Amino acid sequence: MPAGEYMNNTPHPTAGSNEEEAWLWAQIKAEARRDAEAEPALASYLYSTILSHSSLERSLSFHLGNKLCSSTLLSTLLYDMFLNTFSNDAALRAATVADLRAARFRDPACVSFAHCLLNYKGFLACQAHRVAHKLWTQCRQPLALALQSRISDVFAVDIHPAAKIGKGILFDHATGVVVGETAVIGNNVSILHHVTLGGTGKAGGDRHPKIGDGVLIGAGATILGNVKIGEGAKIGAGSVVLIDVPPQTTAVGNPARLVGGKDTPSKHEDVPGESMDHTSFISEWSDYII
Amino acid sequence: MPAGEYMNNTPHPTAGSNEEEAWLWAQIKAEARRDAEAEPALASYLYSTILSHSSLERSLSFHLGNKLCSSTLLSTLLYDMFLNTFSNDAALRAATVADLRAARFRDPACVSFAHCLLNYKGFLACQAHRVAHKLWTQCRQPLALALQSRISDVFAVDIHPAAKIGKGILFDHATGVVVGETAVIGNNVSILHHVTLGGTGKAGGDRHPKIGDGVLIGAGATILGNVKIGEGAKIGAGSVVLIDVPPQTTAVGNPARLVGGKDTPSKHEDVPGESMDHTSFISEWSDYII
Amino acid sequence: MPAGEYMNNTPHPTAGSNEEEAWLWAQIKAEARRDAEAEPALASYLYSTILSHSSLERSLSFHLGNKLCSSTLLSTLLYDMFLNTFSNDAALRAATVADLRAARFRDPACVSFAHCLLNYKGFLACQAHRVAHKLWTQCRQPLALALQSRISDVFAVDIHPAAKIGKGILFDHATGVVVGETAVIGNNVSILHHVTLGGTGKAGGDRHPKIGDGVLIGAGATILGNVKIGEGAKIGAGSVVLIDVPPQTTAVGNPARLVGGKDTPSKHEDVPGESMDHTSFISEWSDYII
Amino acid sequence: MPAGEYMNNTPHPTAGSNEEEAWLWAQIKAEARRDAEAEPALASYLYSTILSHSSLERSLSFHLGNKLCSSTLLSTLLYDMFLNTFSNDAALRAATVADLRAARFRDPACVSFAHCLLNYKGFLACQAHRVAHKLWTQCRQPLALALQSRISDVFAVDIHPAAKIGKGILFDHATGVVVGETAVIGNNVSILHHVTLGGTGKAGGDRHPKIGDGVLIGAGATILGNVKIGEGAKIGAGSVVLIDVPPQTTAVGNPARLVGGKDTPSKHEDVPGESMDHTSFISEWSDYII
Amino acid sequence: MPAGEYMNNTPHPTAGSNEEEAWLWAQIKAEARRDAEAEPALASYLYSTILSHSSLERSLSFHLGNKLCSSTLLSTLLYDMFLNTFSNDAALRAATVADLRAARFRDPACVSFAHCLLNYKGFLACQAHRVAHKLWTQCRQPLALALQSRISDVFAVDIHPAAKIGKGILFDHATGVVVGETAVIGNNVSILHHVTLGGTGKAGGDRHPKIGDGVLIGAGATILGNVKIGEGAKIGAGSVVLIDVPPQTTAVGNPARLVGGKDTPSKHEDVPGESMDHTSFISEWSDYII
Amino acid sequence: MPAGEYMNNTPHPTAGSNEEEAWLWAQIKAEARRDAEAEPALASYLYSTILSHSSLERSLSFHLGNKLCSSTLLSTLLYDMFLNTFSNDAALRAATVADLRAARFRDPACVSFAHCLLNYKGFLACQAHRVAHKLWTQCRQPLALALQSRISDVFAVDIHPAAKIGKGILFDHATGVVVGETAVIGNNVSILHHVTLGGTGKAGGDRHPKIGDGVLIGAGATILGNVKIGEGAKIGAGSVVLIDVPPQTTAVGNPARLVGGKDTPSKHEDVPGESMDHTSFISEWSDYII
Repeated sequence: MPAGEYMNNTPHPTAGSNEEEAWLWAQIKAEARRDAEAEPALASYLYSTILSHSSLERSLSFHLGNKLCSSTLLSTLLYDMFLNTFSNDAALRAATVADLRAARFRDPACVSFAHCLLNYKGFLACQAHRVAHKLWTQCRQPLALALQSRISDVFAVDIHPAAKIGKGILFDHATGVVVGETAVIGNNVSILHHVTLGGTGKAGGDRHPKIGDGVLIGAGATILGNVKIGEGAKIGAGSVVLIDVPPQTTAVGNPARLVGGKDTPSKHEDVPGESMDHTSFISEWSDYII
Repeated sequence: MPAGEYMNNTPHPTAGSNEEEAWLWAQIKAEARRDAEAEPALASYLYSTILSHSSLERSLSFHLGNKLCSSTLLSTLLYDMFLNTFSNDAALRAATVADLRAARFRDPACVSFAHCLLNYKGFLACQAHRVAHKLWTQCRQPLALALQSRISDVFAVDIHPAAKIGKGILFDHATGVVVGETAVIGNNVSILHHVTLGGTGKAGGDRHPKIGDGVLIGAGATILGNVKIGEGAKIGAGSVVLIDVPPQTTAVGNPARLVGGKDTPSKHEDVPGESMDHTSFISEWSDYII
Repeated sequence: MPAGEYMNNTPHPTAGSNEEEAWLWAQIKAEARRDAEAEPALASYLYSTILSHSSLERSLSFHLGNKLCSSTLLSTLLYDMFLNTFSNDAALRAATVADLRAARFRDPACVSFAHCLLNYKGFLACQAHRVAHKLWTQCRQPLALALQSRISDVFAVDIHPAAKIGKGILFDHATGVVVGETAVIGNNVSILHHVTLGGTGKAGGDRHPKIGDGVLIGAGATILGNVKIGEGAKIGAGSVVLIDVPPQTTAVGNPARLVGGKDTPSKHEDVPGESMDHTSFISEWSDYII
Repeated sequence: MPAGEYMNNTPHPTAGSNEEEAWLWAQIKAEARRDAEAEPALASYLYSTILSHSSLERSLSFHLGNKLCSSTLLSTLLYDMFLNTFSNDAALRAATVADLRAARFRDPACVSFAHCLLNYKGFLACQAHRVAHKLWTQCRQPLALALQSRISDVFAVDIHPAAKIGKGILFDHATGVVVGETAVIGNNVSILHHVTLGGTGKAGGDRHPKIGDGVLIGAGATILGNVKIGEGAKIGAGSVVLIDVPPQTTAVGNPARLVGGKDTPSKHEDVPGESMDHTSFISEWSDYII
Repeated sequence: MPAGEYMNNTPHPTAGSNEEEAWLWAQIKAEARRDAEAEPALASYLYSTILSHSSLERSLSFHLGNKLCSSTLLSTLLYDMFLNTFSNDAALRAATVADLRAARFRDPACVSFAHCLLNYKGFLACQAHRVAHKLWTQCRQPLALALQSRISDVFAVDIHPAAKIGKGILFDHATGVVVGETAVIGNNVSILHHVTLGGTGKAGGDRHPKIGDGVLIGAGATILGNVKIGEGAKIGAGSVVLIDVPPQTTAVGNPARLVGGKDTPSKHEDVPGESMDHTSFISEWSDYII
Repeated sequence: MPAGEYMNNTPHPTAGSNEEEAWLWAQIKAEARRDAEAEPALASYLYSTILSHSSLERSLSFHLGNKLCSSTLLSTLLYDMFLNTFSNDAALRAATVADLRAARFRDPACVSFAHCLLNYKGFLACQAHRVAHKLWTQCRQPLALALQSRISDVFAVDIHPAAKIGKGILFDHATGVVVGETAVIGNNVSILHHVTLGGTGKAGGDRHPKIGDGVLIGAGATILGNVKIGEGAKIGAGSVVLIDVPPQTTAVGNPARLVGGKDTPSKHEDVPGESMDHTSFISEWSDYII
C-alpha cells in the first residue's frame, strides 16, 4: 500500500514503537471522519464506536463490550473489564496494533484500519481472547471461560483462554475457528476460517498443536494433537494434519502430504503467514488433477 | 409439490412476472395466518414479521432490520435502508422471489414460503447481501462493509459486498459460507454450508471463483482462486478445488478429481443446482471404498 | 475425575436415577457459589443464571430463554415454553443430566458442570433441540422450526427438529454442526464441530445418516445420505462418508476408507464416543505421510 | 353498560365468584381478538400480551414482567415472581378482577377490559403493588422495595409496599400518586392522579391516612398524617386535608373545608368512589366564585 | 431572538408557509452539526436522531419510535406508523413546526430548535398525540389507545387520543399533564406541568374543558368539567377551576376567583399563552399576603 | 438511628471527612450482602449494582448509566461520563454522601443506605443533575441538556442543569419535581414530590426561587419567580408562593399566608429541612377547619 493512501500525513513510525499506537489511532480517526462525512447513515455508528473516544483502547473496549454483552452480562461490566485490562498492559496494546497492521497489509479486501477495527470478527475475537487469556493467567478462570463462551456465541470463534497467541495475527473471515487449551500460535501467523487446532482425546495435558512463526493455514484445515508446524510452513486448505510439518514446507491433502514428497519436500523462501500465497504450490502438487 | 398444497387458490403465475410477487406474498400471508391460528404462542411473532405488513419488501425489511441491528446500528436505521433499497429496485425483488422459490422447491425440509422467509439464515443473509451489493455499486462502501460485518456476526455467512450473485440461489443451512470480493455466482445455483469461494493471497485484482449457472456445491467444499466452475457442474462435499471444472461434470475429493477421469469425465444431463443430487456419483467414483 | 473434586460431599448416585438430578443440581450450585465468591464481577451472572433458581430445569429454561430470545420472540415466552416442556418430561431432564455428565467427563477442558451448563453452546443447542423435537412430535411444527432457526442463528448449530438424538451426547465446540431431518443419533455419541449429517438431494423421505451408540465423529466430517455408522465406529476428522461404516471400525479420508482396509478393517475395543480417542489410528493409517 | 356490549354471550356471573374470573378472561380474549382482527399493526402486541396466554394471571404476569424489567432486573425473573404470587393467592386474583370492573364501569373513557389490562398504568401499578405488598408480608422487604422503585420509575406511581389497599380500586390516570407506608385504603375507592396520602415527618410509626370504603379523592388532593377519611366521603380536587373528614361529607379547598360548613355539613347519599361525581357540590360551595 | 442567532443565513420565511418547514429543518441540522462538532460524546446521538435524516418528519418519527417503543411494541412498527402519518398530512407537519416555534420563542430555557426536538417531552408527547388523534379519527381506536398508554408511561403525559389540540402549543416541563377525552385546546396555548383538563364523573358525553386561543395555564392548575376558558385568559398556578372564565381575565386560587372581582374583573391586553407572564397579577391579587 | 443498626462495626466518622465516604461504602456493601443472602432472587441485581464494584462512585455511575441509557444514548457512554465526573471531583462525591445521609436519617421509610442508593429516584435524579450541572459549568450545554431530558423521562424529575443545589438534599418521592434554570437550593433542604421552583414568564435572566438552608417544602407546593425563601422556613403542602418568605416562618395555603399572620408570624426553632415536621402548625393555622 503506498504511503499516500494514509489519511494523516505524519510518517509511519517504527513498528512496535510507542509512537505507532498514537499514529495508528490518528489514522483510524481520520478514516472514520472521512467515512462519517461521506455516509451520514453510518455517522452515528462511527461516532459512537470511534470518533467519541480518546484512545484506541477505549474505542476497542467500547466496541467489544457492546458486541459481547448479553442480557446477563452487561455491556458496562464488559467495557470496564476490557478497559482495565488494555489500560494496564502495554504488551496487549502492542499486539492489537500488530494485528491491525496484519489485517490491513495482508488482506486485499481490507480497505482501512477502521474497517478492520469495526468489522473484522477475527480481529475482534482475537482481541477479546487476549483479554480472556490475561484473566486466565491471573487465576480468574470462571470469568475467562464466560468470555470465551460469549466470543464463541457472537463471532463463532472458539479459542480456549489458556491458548497462547503471538502478535501480528490475522484470523481471516474467522467463522468456525477452534483453538484448543494447550495450543500455541507464534507471531505473524495467518489463519483462515474453519481452521481447527484440536486435541487428541479425553486425556488432559499438552495435547494441541504448536504453530511456528509465519505459518499460513488455509481454510478448513484441521490440525490435531501436540504436533509442531515449523516456522514458515504452509498448510493447504482442507488439509488434515496429524504429524509434524517441517519449516518452510507445504502440507496439503487429507491426509496431508508434503509437496515435493516426504523425503525431498520443496522449500519456499517467503513467509507464507505474511505473503498469504495460498495456491502457488498447485503446479508442484503432482497428483492434483481435474 | 402438488398445486393443491398452496394456501391460496389463484393459479401460480409465470415465474419472474409482476404477478408472481403478489401471488407469492398472498401465499406467504395465508401460510402465516394458518400457523398463527394453530399456534397462539407463535402468533405474535407471525403478526409482527408477516401479517402486519402490506408487502413482501416491508416484511423482509422489518425482519432483516430486527435481525441485523445492534446497539450501535439501530433497527429503524436498517429497516429504512432495506425498505428504500427494495422499494426502488424491481430486480432485487424479483431475485428475492426467485430465491424463495429455490428454497421451497429444492429443499425437502422447507415446508412453506413463510418458513423460508422467517427461518432460513441462508435466504436472509443472501437478501441482505443483495442490498449490501447495491450499496457497494452506489459507492457507499463503508455502509456496505458494515452490513457485511453484521451478516457475518448474525448468520455466520460472510459474503463480500462486491461479490455478484444471480437469482434463484439456495444457500442451504448456510453457516460458515465465505464468498470473496471478486467471486461471481450465476443463476439457479445451490450452495451448501461451510462452502468457501476464496482468494489466492494478498494480491488484489480478480482472484475469486466464477460459478456458472445451475452449479451445485456440496457441504464444506473449498474453491480457491480465479477458477471457472462450468455450467451445471457439481462439486462434491468436502472437495478442494483449485482448477477449472468443465460444465456438466462432477469434481470430488481433496484434491478434487473429475468423476470418470480427467480426460473422459462423466457428463450428467440434469441441472444439479436444481436437482440437488449430492450423491448419485458414488457408484462412479471408482476409488471410493469403505 | 476423583470424587474429591466434587463440591458437595454426598456420594454420586446411580446414573439415570431420580437422585442423580438432585445431586447434580446441588453440585452445580456449589460450583457456582464458589465461583461467585472468587469473582465478584461474575457473581451477578451466576446468581441470575444459577443461584437464584430452585431447580436445574428452571435454571436451564431461564438461560435458554435469555440466549435464544430476539426482539420478536421474547425471553418470557421462550422461558415459559422451555419450563413447561422440561417440567412435564422426566426423560428430557434425564437426557440433560446425561449430556452434562458427557461433557464433564469426556472433555478435559470442561472444568465443572456449571461451566458446561453456562458456556457450552453444543450443550445448550442440544437441550433446545430436545425441546424443539418434543414440539415437533406434538404437531407444533411452526414453533419447532422457529426454535431451530434461533438455535442456528445464536449457536451456529442447525439441527432439524425432527432429528432423533439419544442421551449422553457431547457436541464439542459445536459451531457449524448440521443434522438433517431424518437423522438418528444413538446414545453416548460424541460429535465435534463442523460435522454434517446431511441428505442426498431434493427428494423427501428417509435420507439422512443413522449414527449408532458410542460413535465418535471428528471435526469437519461430512456424512451424507441414509447410511449407517455402526456402533462404536470412529469417523476421522475431515472425512467424507457416503457408505455404511461397520461397527467398531475407523473410517478416515476424503473419500473415506476403513483403517486396515475394506476387507480386513482393524477393530477397536473401546467406545470411541466416550474415550474420545481421535488420533490413535494414525500409525495404522498406512498412506498417511508427511 | 348494557350486557349486549359484552363480546361473549354467557351471562355475567356474580362478582367475586369463582366463575367471574373465567368469565372476565373470556371477555378479555374476545375483545383482544376483535381488536387484532381490526388492526393488524396491533395484532402482534395483542397476541403476545393476551391471546397467547391461557389465563388472566399469566397474561398479567407477562405484561408486568415486560413493563417493569430493566437491564439489571430481567423480565423472566419478574415474570416468574408475578406468576408464582398470583397463582398461589386467590384473593389477589379476585382483587385484580374487582379492579378491572372498577375501571371498566366507573371510567367512561375505558372502552373494554382489555383496554384497562393493557393500557391503564394505574391498574398495572396497583396489581404490581399487590404483589409487592404480599412480598412485604412474607418478610421479603428488599425485593418488595426494589419492585416499588421500578413501579415508581415506570408508572410514576409510588406506593410503599407496606400500604394496605382494598379491592375494586380505580387509580385514574395515576401519574404522581404517592401512598405512604402506614396508609390504608378501603374497598371501592377511586383516586385520581397526583393524589398524595402522605406522612407527617421523620418519626416512624402509624403516620399516614386511612381511607374508608367508597371514598373519592379528586386530582391533586393532598392528605397528610394519620387522619381518617370516613366512608363515602369526597375530597375535592386540589384540596389539602390534615384533619379527619366525616363519612358521606365533602371536603374542598386549601385548607380543606366541609361543604355545608363544619357543624352542618351536607351529607350525600351516593358512594362517590363508585359514582365518580366530582363536581356536583359546586352550587353548594358558597365562596366558589368566578 | 435576533435573527443573527440563527445558524443558517436565509431569512426566516412566513409562518405556516411551505418554505418554513424546510427553513426550520435546515436550521435544526445546522444546530445539530454545531453541537456534534463541539461535543463528540453527543455526536452519535445527534447523527442518529437528526443528522442522518433527510427531513423533519423522518427525524421526528425515528426519535418517537425509539422513545415510545417497548419489548412488545417494536420501534420499527412505531417508526413506520409515525412516518406514514406525518408524510400524508401536511397539517400535522405544520402543527409540529408551530409547536417548535412556540417552545423556541416562549421558553427562555430553550436554546435551539434542536434542543426542543430532542429533549422536550412536552413537545414529543404532543406530536405523538397528534398522530394518536389522527388514528382515532380513522376509527383505529385500539392503536390510538395503545399509543396514549405508551406516551403516559414514557413522558408522564396522559392525553386522550380524542382530545382536539390546536397549533403553536407549548407543554412546558409537561410531567403530569392530563387531558380528557372531550377536551379542546385552541391555538397558541401554553400549558405548564401538572395541569389537568379533567372530567366530571362517570357519565360519558361532552364533559371536559374547552380552552380558547392564547390561554396560559399555570403549573398544577386543575380545570374540571365542560367549562369554557375564554380566549386570552390566564389561569394561575395551583388554581382549581370548575366554572367558565371570561376572555382576557385571570383566575387564581383554590377555588379560583377572578382577579379584580367577579363583576369587574381586570382585563389584560396581551396574549398570555404567548407572553407567558405568570405573575404580574400579584399586585392586583388583593388577599395575597405573606 | 442507634449505631447498633449499622452493618459494620467501625464507628461512624465525622460527616464530610475523607473517611466518611469509605465508611459509607463499607456500610452499603454490608447491607447489600445481607440482602443478597436473604433474597436469592435479588442477588443478581445487588451484585451487578453494588457488590461487584470497588467504590461508591463506580456503583453509582453503573447504576445511573443503566437507568438513564436509551437506544440512542448507550449505557457505556453514560457510565464513562458519570465515572469520569465523579472520579475527578471530591466535592461531588461529598455531596452524594451527604444526600445519602439525608435520606437515611430524615425519611423513616428508608431502611438502609443501599435502599436509597438503588431505589430512590429523587436521590438518583439529584446525583445525575449534579453531573449535568458540572457539564454545564464546563460549557458542555448540549450534553447537559440531553442528560436533563433523560432524567425527566426516566425519573419524572426536571431540573435545569444550570440550577445550583447544595448538599444534604432529600427529594422525597420526587415525581413531578421541576426546578428552573436560575433556581438556587441551599444545604440540608428537603423537598417533597410535585414541587415546582418555577419562573415568571418568557423573559430570561434571574427568574427562579432561591431556597435557603434547612428549608422544608411540602408536597405539591409551587414557588414562582425570583423570590427568597429564608433559612429554616417551611412551605406547606399545596401552597402557592409568589413573594419572599422570612426565615424560620411557615407559609401555607393558596395563595400562601404566614402562620401567625403577616406582621407577627410564628417562628419555629428547629430546622424543618432536617426535622421534616410537616403538620405541627395545624393548631396555629386559624382558619383551617373541617
